[in-house]
Amino acid sequence: MPLLVTGSIGIDTVKTPYGVSENCLGGSAIYFSMAASYFSSVRLIGVTGPDCPFDLSEIFAERDVDLAGLEVRPQSKTFRWTGSYYSTMNEAITDKVELNVLAEEPPKVPEAYKDSKLVFLANTAPTLQSELLEQIDKPIFVAADTMNCWIHDRKSDLENLLKKIDCLIINDDEARMLAADSNLTKAAHKILAMGPNIIIIKKGESGSIMYSADGSVFLLPAFPAEDVKDPTGAGDSFAGGFMGYLAQVKKTDFESLKTAVAYGTVVASFTISDFSLQGLTSITKRDIENRLEILREVTNFSLRTL
Amino acid sequence: MPLLVTGSIGIDTVKTPYGVSENCLGGSAIYFSMAASYFSSVRLIGVTGPDCPFDLSEIFAERDVDLAGLEVRPQSKTFRWTGSYYSTMNEAITDKVELNVLAEEPPKVPEAYKDSKLVFLANTAPTLQSELLEQIDKPIFVAADTMNCWIHDRKSDLENLLKKIDCLIINDDEARMLAADSNLTKAAHKILAMGPNIIIIKKGESGSIMYSADGSVFLLPAFPAEDVKDPTGAGDSFAGGFMGYLAQVKKTDFESLKTAVAYGTVVASFTISDFSLQGLTSITKRDIENRLEILREVTNFSLRTL
Repeated sequence: MPLLVTGSIGIDTVKTPYGVSENCLGGSAIYFSMAASYFSSVRLIGVTGPDCPFDLSEIFAERDVDLAGLEVRPQSKTFRWTGSYYSTMNEAITDKVELNVLAEEPPKVPEAYKDSKLVFLANTAPTLQSELLEQIDKPIFVAADTMNCWIHDRKSDLENLLKKIDCLIINDDEARMLAADSNLTKAAHKILAMGPNIIIIKKGESGSIMYSADGSVFLLPAFPAEDVKDPTGAGDSFAGGFMGYLAQVKKTDFESLKTAVAYGTVVASFTISDFSLQGLTSITKRDIENRLEILREVTNFSLRTL
Repeated sequence: MPLLVTGSIGIDTVKTPYGVSENCLGGSAIYFSMAASYFSSVRLIGVTGPDCPFDLSEIFAERDVDLAGLEVRPQSKTFRWTGSYYSTMNEAITDKVELNVLAEEPPKVPEAYKDSKLVFLANTAPTLQSELLEQIDKPIFVAADTMNCWIHDRKSDLENLLKKIDCLIINDDEARMLAADSNLTKAAHKILAMGPNIIIIKKGESGSIMYSADGSVFLLPAFPAEDVKDPTGAGDSFAGGFMGYLAQVKKTDFESLKTAVAYGTVVASFTISDFSLQGLTSITKRDIENRLEILREVTNFSLRTL
């Protein structure tokens, strides 16, 4: 099932207690596409300036990532982000952000992408997410990310978007903020009432929760990784593994969504094990399958051991 | 298998966003015993003053809780605790504490209790925990709780205790503090190296993690409860469900420990649904079994949904 992602392509500088990674490749569309490419082909939509030092066709060589939706704007500059992580590394502190091309009009969806059936709208202004979504003919399952600034400053734009998507993937603080409820279960139900059929709440090292509008629930801990070096891209890698699996199996029933969350969790655990894309690109599909089996083993319990 | 608990009996005053509960029955030994009584008989060791307004034989009527280890000291006063919970209710703020009888010498273990095989040493000074433990002849499985003040002020006493117990049950902040490591997986392994074969780290609404010295791991989310009114006693109820199940099945292999963690999780979810003991006493064993089945269902995923 054709999978499309719209998101950022960035030049990141990241500081963590384990080191510094300067001017490395980042951005939501990059992490998403790399993660999803282990499961499915991916259509990438994003924009850079001519200053982007990375050759994406080389970065994605031997991966089934279609770059026909990549636009290089001669008069613009590439998005740049500088951030730091401290102590438990659950949250990034933005030291500097240069929106550059992201502050301009959104890219156009190429004609050949309009039949995409699975769509991930990575975090950006909700009006831009809506504009991008309107260009797709008949998507089957649309997931979106957002963040605190849009919840705070563009609540009604976001509420409009929520009526048009199937699945919202956000973190726990964002869910509490959007629902104005500190109890995550209650917050989830309030957000489902705003439109989406599925909400996935990411809780960093505490895993994730998925709720459906029809009352189904799925709780999954994070993979117990010892080596967390750089959490950048964890959320977009999670989304990439999640959507990539759905594209692979061509199903979006709740049982498939559960397995997709588990794959997203595992893929994200590789991303955070090293700086930039290194943790995600140095593995094979077999490594992902192995960790999925471990994750199932360490979360499974018997009802009786008599 | 005879199960013994040593811990506090208190008069609590608790404020949460959902109300106030004044001068209600609390204390670690009380929550533990009530929770464990759904699975097994319990031997309770604790001390009060004559000012204690609660008739424990009435509180535990129709439950198999042996109060032969209850001591009322005529010259002493009962332990009192006043605390508040705010917003996400993950942490209690102590407004006032009157140690009273808890600042005196520990109770004596009755002769009839010395053959206890499962022992839970609720949170108190590590030297007192060690003194109590020395009075038990040949326990099979000893679990203990502790807290930040002992980790900070009585580190070497605590390290001595850790060499004598099988299982430490603490929360995530305490684990990070004890191990001096912000990564919970690494912290767990450092604590296992201090003595216990098993460590269970409780993460409030994010569930719990169990590690064994031989490398086994178990991760379990919290029960997705909407109605959290008062988290007081959650940890001791968890320990009560956990140890109660082990006493019931008379086994301490890792598979049984996993199921025991799941029972502890479920029992704690009832405790936090109402003030004081009300959430825990208003249920039946069938309610516990039902939630255990739900917990298994919502944490289970398929490796493939092709």
